[in-house]
Amino acid sequence: MNAVTELLQSHRSIRKFTDEKLSAALIEEIMLSGQAAATSSNVQAVSVIQVNDPEARQQLAEYAGGQPYVASAGAFFVFCADLNRPAQACEMQGGDFASGMTEQFLIASIDVALFAQNCVVAAQSHGLGICYIGGLRNKPAEVSTLLKLPHNVYPVFGLCLGFPDQNPEVKPRMPLSSVLMQDQYKQDSHVDNINTYDETVREYYRTRTGGKKDSSWSEEMKKLIGKESRPHMREFLASKGFTLR
Amino acid sequence: MNAVTELLQSHRSIRKFTDEKLSAALIEEIMLSGQAAATSSNVQAVSVIQVNDPEARQQLAEYAGGQPYVASAGAFFVFCADLNRPAQACEMQGGDFASGMTEQFLIASIDVALFAQNCVVAAQSHGLGICYIGGLRNKPAEVSTLLKLPHNVYPVFGLCLGFPDQNPEVKPRMPLSSVLMQDQYKQDSHVDNINTYDETVREYYRTRTGGKKDSSWSEEMKKLIGKESRPHMREFLASKGFTLR
Repeated sequence: MNAVTELLQSHRSIRKFTDEKLSAALIEEIMLSGQAAATSSNVQAVSVIQVNDPEARQQLAEYAGGQPYVASAGAFFVFCADLNRPAQACEMQGGDFASGMTEQFLIASIDVALFAQNCVVAAQSHGLGICYIGGLRNKPAEVSTLLKLPHNVYPVFGLCLGFPDQNPEVKPRMPLSSVLMQDQYKQDSHVDNINTYDETVREYYRTRTGGKKDSSWSEEMKKLIGKESRPHMREFLASKGFTLR
Repeated sequence: MNAVTELLQSHRSIRKFTDEKLSAALIEEIMLSGQAAATSSNVQAVSVIQVNDPEARQQLAEYAGGQPYVASAGAFFVFCADLNRPAQACEMQGGDFASGMTEQFLIASIDVALFAQNCVVAAQSHGLGICYIGGLRNKPAEVSTLLKLPHNVYPVFGLCLGFPDQNPEVKPRMPLSSVLMQDQYKQDSHVDNINTYDETVREYYRTRTGGKKDSSWSEEMKKLIGKESRPHMREFLASKGFTLR
């Protein structure tokens, strides 16, 4: 490993931050690192709203299902998939934006994720902690109203950045042999790998919670995907002009 | 800037590689760095198929619309959104996978992008060049058949990794002021920013092609989103169990 892969492999989410704010120069450096990520056909379908207003931060913390670090982190950003800007460019050239394509939704969402992950790595390289906030998708319409997001823009996730005031363990991952395959998809070993990983996860939770949480990965997956996930998302996205066709 | 943000900000796609292969240890380090990225509720909805077979590589290069570096790069990977593995875990616990949710499609696709971008940074930190291959989505059903992808798995993009045999310029991005906003979405300055960026992009193409390519960002956007993008994607995704509801 080198210093960069050590940094990447030491990632864990931080949910408790000191009061220290981030300088404007540091935020700019992080955002320029985000912009430098690959983007599909240079569409750059990303806008980032930095939320500074304390009441708005509190509101977003509640929308996210009660995550207080959304309000308390040194800085908080909402990463948006933005087809409004390229649509405007298209129209400036006399074109008609062929809106609503599922492919465009996918391209914009991936652009956002690549951009954000570069921001995360840049932030962590400066000793900051991070936490992605997918919970904003609990209330995507309300988030959109609060941030005045126009049509063809939707909030993909939030991101807390700040100086860490905790030092949690790295969460163990699935065995790599279950994830990296050669030439063709192989699922023969999934059950064995899940069984192995279940014990790893159970031990991780036991240690981290002093025995209070006793659960395996497959138990967590049953809770997570054994029921409907945010069933409002399809209609919300359609209302913003995404995934209509 | 520090060494990491310098690395991030020096990204450009590489489309010409030397013959040098990647060692198994290097690939493992890159993939472990990918696995370490954040994942929504630890669902780890990512599988990566490394394609070694020369005929399959050639076939994928053609599916991608004729991109020869898919066949010639030191290594080639297809990054797949994988809800098959968590579904299997859910069923091992007696649960029923609530399949087809748009939210799950989004979560899995973002998981893939975060994982892949960490792989990209890890690879570049070792001097490798990279190129994302969204063009696999020209023929997603054919790619899925070739790689024997099961239901609830789809190919998001490919990734070429290899030692660079070219040294292209970094492509300039949109002014940051157009991308990073404070508290609320602001589109007042979009037109000015697009006009400024149009000239930057025109100059970049002129320089890079010795005057052969004379185009602006907004002209490129008109070509890109002024027509339907991969209209087969919605039906393809549905056939794999994604975005049904």
